Amino acid sequence: MDTHPSSSVLRDSPAPDGLRCAPDPSRALSWRAVSGIEDWLIGRIRRRLGEAPVRLVLWNGTEIPLSTGPVVATVVIHNAGALWDIAVDPDRRFGDAYSSGRVDVEGDLLALLDSASAGGSSGPSRARLVFRWLAGNTFSRSRANVHHHYDIGNDFYRLWLDDQLVYTCAYFPTPDATLEDAQVAKMRHVCRKLALTSGETVVEAGCGWGALALYMARHYGVRVKAFNISHEQIEYARRRAAEEGLSAHVDFIEDDYRNIRGPYDVFVSIGMLEHVGREFHETFGRIIDRALDPRRGRGLLHFIGRNQPALLNAWIRARIFPGGYPPTLHEVCESILEPAGLSILDVENLRLHYAKTLDHWRRRFERASDRIRAMFGEPFVRAWRLYLTGSEAAFHTGWMQLFQITFARGTLNDLPWVRPDGGPAVMR
Amino acid sequence: MDTHPSSSVLRDSPAPDGLRCAPDPSRALSWRAVSGIEDWLIGRIRRRLGEAPVRLVLWNGTEIPLSTGPVVATVVIHNAGALWDIAVDPDRRFGDAYSSGRVDVEGDLLALLDSASAGGSSGPSRARLVFRWLAGNTFSRSRANVHHHYDIGNDFYRLWLDDQLVYTCAYFPTPDATLEDAQVAKMRHVCRKLALTSGETVVEAGCGWGALALYMARHYGVRVKAFNISHEQIEYARRRAAEEGLSAHVDFIEDDYRNIRGPYDVFVSIGMLEHVGREFHETFGRIIDRALDPRRGRGLLHFIGRNQPALLNAWIRARIFPGGYPPTLHEVCESILEPAGLSILDVENLRLHYAKTLDHWRRRFERASDRIRAMFGEPFVRAWRLYLTGSEAAFHTGWMQLFQITFARGTLNDLPWVRPDGGPAVMR
Repeated sequence: MDTHPSSSVLRDSPAPDGLRCAPDPSRALSWRAVSGIEDWLIGRIRRRLGEAPVRLVLWNGTEIPLSTGPVVATVVIHNAGALWDIAVDPDRRFGDAYSSGRVDVEGDLLALLDSASAGGSSGPSRARLVFRWLAGNTFSRSRANVHHHYDIGNDFYRLWLDDQLVYTCAYFPTPDATLEDAQVAKMRHVCRKLALTSGETVVEAGCGWGALALYMARHYGVRVKAFNISHEQIEYARRRAAEEGLSAHVDFIEDDYRNIRGPYDVFVSIGMLEHVGREFHETFGRIIDRALDPRRGRGLLHFIGRNQPALLNAWIRARIFPGGYPPTLHEVCESILEPAGLSILDVENLRLHYAKTLDHWRRRFERASDRIRAMFGEPFVRAWRLYLTGSEAAFHTGWMQLFQITFARGTLNDLPWVRPDGGPAVMR
Repeated sequence: MDTHPSSSVLRDSPAPDGLRCAPDPSRALSWRAVSGIEDWLIGRIRRRLGEAPVRLVLWNGTEIPLSTGPVVATVVIHNAGALWDIAVDPDRRFGDAYSSGRVDVEGDLLALLDSASAGGSSGPSRARLVFRWLAGNTFSRSRANVHHHYDIGNDFYRLWLDDQLVYTCAYFPTPDATLEDAQVAKMRHVCRKLALTSGETVVEAGCGWGALALYMARHYGVRVKAFNISHEQIEYARRRAAEEGLSAHVDFIEDDYRNIRGPYDVFVSIGMLEHVGREFHETFGRIIDRALDPRRGRGLLHFIGRNQPALLNAWIRARIFPGGYPPTLHEVCESILEPAGLSILDVENLRLHYAKTLDHWRRRFERASDRIRAMFGEPFVRAWRLYLTGSEAAFHTGWMQLFQITFARGTLNDLPWVRPDGGPAVMR
C-alpha cells in the first residue's frame, strides 16, 4: 500500500547493528539506546508526541517509553519501513501502516487515541495537535474508506449498525439507552425541533437507508421526498416503505441534492453537509432557499463540524475523501444560512452523543469481527477498527463536533414557544 | 433638533397653493393631488414604503393613502419641514420628528411598524427594507436614548421594569407568564444552561442592577464577581446584596469588562455584547479566554443580533449609539469564540420572547406615562414610546434577533448530557 520510494530502501535494508540487540531493560528505558537514522526518526516521533503515555517497541524488541508515567498502550513497529512512514509522514501513512499490520497497537487503542487530549487547554494545545494524525486525520481518512467501500453492501452494515441502519450520530436520552432507542430518540428529537404538523411537506437531502423519512411519515403525518444517490440504499428504503404501507407518503428519489426544487415546508439533512465540501456551501444554501416555502419554510442541518477551521490533509482530500470538509459553525452561518436570509433558531452540539454512538458501533463491530474478517480480510477489519476508534476519540476529546442547527424563514413566527424538553421519553 | 440647512428653507416657507386646499375626499384618494416639491417628497416616501397599509395626512388636511387596502395607522405630518425630513432622510430624522411632535401617528403604532413585514419572504424583502427606518433604526437610535439618559435614575426604570430591574430580554415559560416570573425564569434558564455547581466562581460582564449575580449566589451557591461601569447601578446592587445577606458571595465591581482577569469557572454576559461593537470583538474574545479556567471554563453570551450583517446608520453610530453593533451569529463565532478555541454547545434564539418583554415594558410605560411626562416632558415620552414600540416590532418581524450562546473549553466533557427541559416550572 505504501509506494513512497524513499521508504522502500529502509524497509528492505537490514537494521543497523545497534538495533539488533536483545531486549535489555536497562537500555530500553532510554530511547537514546537507538542510534543512526532510526535515532533521528524516533526523535521526530518524540517531538510530535511529546509526553504521551505511550511506549514504542521496535522490530528488534527495543522499548522506547515516551513518558515516565503509566503507559496506556504500546505501539509495535514491525520494520524500519513502518518506522520511516510514521515518523516522516504520519498524516498520510499511519492508517495504512496499522491496517496492513506493519504497526500494531497493544493495550487500549481508544485510550491511546484519547489520552493525549485529556489534559488539553484552550486553543490547539500541543497534545491536541500531536494527536491529529491519530484522532483527526485517521477519522477523515477512514471515513473515506466508507465511501471507498460503499459497495460493501447492506449486509456489512447490518452487522454493527442499529436495526434501522442509521449511520449518523444518535441521541441518547440517558447515557445507558440502547443504540436502537437512541437512534429513534434522535429522529424524534429532530422532528420536535422542526415542529412538524400533519399534512406538511418535507424534503430530505441524503436519506441513507430511509429511517428518518419513514419515521416522519409514520409519526407526524407529513409527506416526504427523500434524496440519495446510492442506488442500493434507495432500493432498500423503497422496499421498507412498501412493507410498512408508507409508499404513498414517502418518495425515495435516486438523485443528487442539487436537483431538489420546491417549495416544501421543511428541509432536513442529516450527516450530509460534511460531505458537500466548503466550495459547495453557497450552492447548498441556494438549494435550501429554493426548496423552502417563502413563509412557512424551516429546516434542520445535522453535521460533523469543528471549533476552528482546518483543511483536511491535501492527500486525503485528493485521494481518499474528495471534497469532504467538516465546517465550523461560523462557516455554515456565513456561507449557507445568512445569504439565504434564514434565521438561526437553535444550535445543539451533540459531540458526546457521537462518541457514545461510535462506542456502540465499535463494540458491535468487534463482536462481528470474525464474520467481517471472513468477508473482507484482516486489513479491512484493522482499517475499520482504527476508523471507528479514532472517530470516537475525535469526538470524545473535542477535536470534532456534531452540530444540529434549526433554522427558519426570517419572518416565521409560528414557532414552538419554548424548546421541547430533552427528557428521557422515547417513542417508537 | 433638526439642523439640516436645506430643510429650514422649506420649514419656514409657506406651502405651495396646491397644498392649501381644504380636505376633499375625492382628491384625497390620490397623492397626485399634491404638486410641486411636496409632490416629489411624497413620491420618495411612497417609493420607500410601497404598499404599506398606511395613510399620510398633511398639515393642510390632504390625505394620501399608500395602498388601496385597509389602513392600520395614519401618519400626520404637521409641517413641510417634517415632510422634508422624513422624505429625504428618514433614518436620521423620523425619530426626532415624531418625538418633537412634528409628526404624529394616529391608530396603532405597533401595527404600523409591524404590518409591513408580516408578508415578508426570504431575504431582505422590499417591505422589510422599507421599514428599517421605523423598526430597525429607530430601535437603535432610541436605544441610544437609553445611554443618553442613563442619568435618568433608577426611579424612572422602576416605573416600568420588573421588580428586580432586569433590563434585558425575559424568558416566558408560557406566553401568559408575568414579566416578574419571566425575568426569574430567564435567570434560571441561564443558570441551567451553565450547569452551575455550588462553590464555583462566576464573572459577569455588565451586570445591570445585579439581579442575575444575586440569583446565582442565592440559588446555586456560587461566588460571583459582577462588573459594571454604571456607578448608580453598582450602588443599587451592593445595597441589595447587603440587604439579602449576600455581600460575602457577590462582589459588585465598578469597572470596565476589559479589566476582568481570571480564572473563573464561568463567564456570563447578558445584554452587553451588542454595545461592545464589532471592532472590539477580538478583544472581548481575549478577555473571555483570559477569564476562563483552562479546563472547566464555560460561559454564556446573551445579546441582540441579526440574521445578516448590517452596519448601523453612520450618523447614529457617530452621534447616538457610539460603537454599538448587533452582530450575526457567524460574526460572534468567527471573531470571539473560534479564536479562543471555545466550543459552542448551544444556541437559542429568543426573539419572540424579546417582543413579548417589550410588549410588557411598553404597556407598563404607557400606564406610567403621566408620571413620566411630569418628570421629563412630552418629547421624552414620545421618544421612549417610539423606542419601545419600534423595538417590539423589530423583534416581532424578525428584523432583530436575541441569541443566547452557551460555550465551553473545547476539551470539557463534564457537561449536561441532554438539555434541561424548557418547561413551565418557575423557581423564585
